[in-house]
Amino acid sequence: MTNRPNVLWIMADQLRFDYLSCYGHPHLHTPHIDALAARGVQFNNAYVQSPVCGPSRMSAYTGRYVRSHGSTWNGMPLRVGEPTLGDHLRDAGARAVLVGKTHMTADVEGMAWLGIDPASEIGVRVSECGFEPFDRDDGLHPDSARQNWSNYDDYLLAHGYASDNPWEDFANSGLDEDGELLSAWLLKNSRLAANIPEEHSETAYMTNRAMEFMTDAAKGDAPWVCHLSYIKPHWPYIVPAPYHDMYDETHIIPPIRSLAEKETPHPLMQAYLGARVCKSFARDHVREHVIPAYMGLIKQLDDNLGRLFAWMDAQGLSDNTMIAFTSDHGDYMGDHWMGDKDFYHEMAVKVPLIISDPRPAADITRGQASDALVEMIDLAPTFMKALGCPDKPQVIEGRDLSPLLQGTVGFDRKYVISEHDYHWSDMARTLKQPQDQAHTTMIFDGRWKFIRCEGFDPVLFDLETDPDEVIDLGTSPADEHVATRARMEAALLKWATQHHTRITATPEVLARQKKAAETGILIGFWDESEYLEAVGKPFDALTPIGRN
Amino acid sequence: MTNRPNVLWIMADQLRFDYLSCYGHPHLHTPHIDALAARGVQFNNAYVQSPVCGPSRMSAYTGRYVRSHGSTWNGMPLRVGEPTLGDHLRDAGARAVLVGKTHMTADVEGMAWLGIDPASEIGVRVSECGFEPFDRDDGLHPDSARQNWSNYDDYLLAHGYASDNPWEDFANSGLDEDGELLSAWLLKNSRLAANIPEEHSETAYMTNRAMEFMTDAAKGDAPWVCHLSYIKPHWPYIVPAPYHDMYDETHIIPPIRSLAEKETPHPLMQAYLGARVCKSFARDHVREHVIPAYMGLIKQLDDNLGRLFAWMDAQGLSDNTMIAFTSDHGDYMGDHWMGDKDFYHEMAVKVPLIISDPRPAADITRGQASDALVEMIDLAPTFMKALGCPDKPQVIEGRDLSPLLQGTVGFDRKYVISEHDYHWSDMARTLKQPQDQAHTTMIFDGRWKFIRCEGFDPVLFDLETDPDEVIDLGTSPADEHVATRARMEAALLKWATQHHTRITATPEVLARQKKAAETGILIGFWDESEYLEAVGKPFDALTPIGRN
Repeated sequence: MTNRPNVLWIMADQLRFDYLSCYGHPHLHTPHIDALAARGVQFNNAYVQSPVCGPSRMSAYTGRYVRSHGSTWNGMPLRVGEPTLGDHLRDAGARAVLVGKTHMTADVEGMAWLGIDPASEIGVRVSECGFEPFDRDDGLHPDSARQNWSNYDDYLLAHGYASDNPWEDFANSGLDEDGELLSAWLLKNSRLAANIPEEHSETAYMTNRAMEFMTDAAKGDAPWVCHLSYIKPHWPYIVPAPYHDMYDETHIIPPIRSLAEKETPHPLMQAYLGARVCKSFARDHVREHVIPAYMGLIKQLDDNLGRLFAWMDAQGLSDNTMIAFTSDHGDYMGDHWMGDKDFYHEMAVKVPLIISDPRPAADITRGQASDALVEMIDLAPTFMKALGCPDKPQVIEGRDLSPLLQGTVGFDRKYVISEHDYHWSDMARTLKQPQDQAHTTMIFDGRWKFIRCEGFDPVLFDLETDPDEVIDLGTSPADEHVATRARMEAALLKWATQHHTRITATPEVLARQKKAAETGILIGFWDESEYLEAVGKPFDALTPIGRN
Repeated sequence: MTNRPNVLWIMADQLRFDYLSCYGHPHLHTPHIDALAARGVQFNNAYVQSPVCGPSRMSAYTGRYVRSHGSTWNGMPLRVGEPTLGDHLRDAGARAVLVGKTHMTADVEGMAWLGIDPASEIGVRVSECGFEPFDRDDGLHPDSARQNWSNYDDYLLAHGYASDNPWEDFANSGLDEDGELLSAWLLKNSRLAANIPEEHSETAYMTNRAMEFMTDAAKGDAPWVCHLSYIKPHWPYIVPAPYHDMYDETHIIPPIRSLAEKETPHPLMQAYLGARVCKSFARDHVREHVIPAYMGLIKQLDDNLGRLFAWMDAQGLSDNTMIAFTSDHGDYMGDHWMGDKDFYHEMAVKVPLIISDPRPAADITRGQASDALVEMIDLAPTFMKALGCPDKPQVIEGRDLSPLLQGTVGFDRKYVISEHDYHWSDMARTLKQPQDQAHTTMIFDGRWKFIRCEGFDPVLFDLETDPDEVIDLGTSPADEHVATRARMEAALLKWATQHHTRITATPEVLARQKKAAETGILIGFWDESEYLEAVGKPFDALTPIGRN
């Protein structure tokens, strides 16, 4: 073991925090993820910076808020020149390697404008949000703007799964009793077994690819962060045997919802409830059909992680590898009469986060849980710290979690922030909300969750008295609620007016400005004697002390 | 004349709005600028986006707020990839050419990271905030981090002004009766004649260079925006004969200040008053010495503009050239007991702005004044419109002024915004304010000027009842003031949470997202019949309607 470990950063897609046994699920047993928590720290209040794949991931990969990096929704290219974790690691002689999904869209126009060839080394890393791609797989092809074929498709073809779209026909479809191919895009087919043996599933494939990367990386000297990024349990909800048949209605935890929520007078919340995916998941038969498949996908993931961790143990890799496990956002699964994600209730915006740091300094916290408010953007600086990167406060907005891993003081956060840009959505069209004003911002202090909704009343939940978040206090006239809203708005204003884009304020630039200011800019001196008194040396116009 | 005019964009440096006769100065007659106003529109409420050179100019050159482009203070490099007016014009086949000052600092680190050679064509324009440099001259050399020699120095040498720093020794120094060289960095020397004949001054030189550019440009076909950017009347305050002796104490308008201001309990305002440049300009003898030189510099500028406009008339250029005249910020000159700029009283943050558009559509407004609230960032989209550039709402935050020039409806702004980052300053050191929290933001609605001061009480002025801005209502308990502060904070929050960085939301990206949303992302369908009902065609998994 060295003091500069490697990092295996595992991300599930659309995994709710509460669908793991270590986070309290009563029926979904995830012993391998639980075991990771037992040898690390389990974070009970980890929030993503946007409750949707693309912007959440761009925040994760940059260590910056959505408002800072500007990639506010899926398919919104991350601008060229936006610094990423991979760039910082490279500066420190380390690698950032991708195995799986990023949801990145390349800024083709920005590259062209700066004369960067997308096929060049710089062009490739700019196109992959700073990662060196070992295997990129965003799923959802063949008609995605991001990707229409993948190495996994090649893998399926090579294993005899003949199709012009093997990802869909085998990994994401099922067969009925008559042998008919049924698409998992339709929710009624979720309970079928996927048309592929588990060993050839995408989850198993990605797990294998991570092993191949680690085997390959062991030939070199550079430390690495490997982002192992699974596309499941994200829809299409379908899982290979035997996982398709492990769970049934009796294993489903009751929905978190109230009849009053359906009557909300809030136009935006009403628009959410009217969106197709919400109307669909508000139906019990949909929940009862989909949730067992969702649970099976998580169980399968846990088993694959067990396989991976055992292999790492056998290879002697575990002792020198920090392992982080998390998700890019959750899934409503019918809670609050909603489906998919895209808003800020706990099951959408809070994610599981477990970090196991093999270094002795972290021994003191093994098996502990932390209730600290943490953000997904904290991972980048945590990994940077572990791999010896210098701090970059002008760029990185997250905070190093090392103090929480090592049981020391120094981590402090009063609020977590999350943002959503719904310009694209059913809600924006229903409300006729202009695309530049269709956005919401959440600020949560551990008790009060305040959601600013541009153009509408805010939403406010008190998680102390209403942990299920079914009572919207956004317009409550009670003094406490009025005062809380004012306080949260002030905090949001403080946050929003911070420097989010002053990324060129490097230590060198700040030092130059500090020097000019400390010795005094050469203005405001009446005569030589004033100069002498202030500066402590005779005035000499030809060697002025600092002009700016 | 064509319908695609050229644009001569003249910028003075540190010119107060009220030191021109067309803006009401009783003693400083500026007939050539007045004449420009008489054939165009004079804007009486034009505000810069930061009351300091660098960030104000970066906003002018990008059409974006300071918080958006991130170059928050002088010497803070404008990040590579931040789109500029020049980039947009180039896309439309037009040129953006620099003659004079920009205060730009290149993002050397950003260029290196993206593999851009600073000497390449792209590197040069990235280093000059998008301009094609015909002549770059920021003044303030030889020890500036930005520039330590200029074409103007070469010009001076060629004309016999031998020195290793001719800019300083000739253009910015004077001679006393004994022939001793005295630096204009010391305010006591402001009344001397500059050690150079007017015809070789920097103002005259830059005027000549603009003529040379226009002569040169006439050989080509591309329309252009020429940014003629003078470094005066910015300090060092010294002007050649006869301008040094045109004005005296009798021509000085009385200072705008009150004794109560000196007793302000506001820590930040007290820190300003304690800064050297403010203490210096709070003294009447400094004002009386410097203001005549400042006035002389403006008079000299006006005469040079008269020379330039006459030349353009003679060359037949005037009929096809839109001319805009403005400044990057003002100068306190002792008002409010302050010197230099850096805060938000009218003489610092409001600038002269005159636009003369030769096209017939603008005939209706010639000689008119506009009281509309306009911002410096409005110039870029106005020029883009004139030169036929497509709108770029994902990038440009200013608003096209054409409706105001053409007397039509369509321009509407409720608030102007300005920002200041004082991390570098006397004030930050006095107050021990952390560098990431040393910032202020002004929002002004035409009556109420609200200044948010991070870490301190706000400042509030009511310009209707207190046009001199000497009564700070930032903590006034009066109901009207409490309500106004709440309203301005809400407006500021709305502004601050807007999309400032979503620059990759091109029409193509938005169209792709709109299409996916309108036809429906392929989630939430229970079965084929639901799909058929919603989408209007049979479900076919292999040709899904939009997956994202």
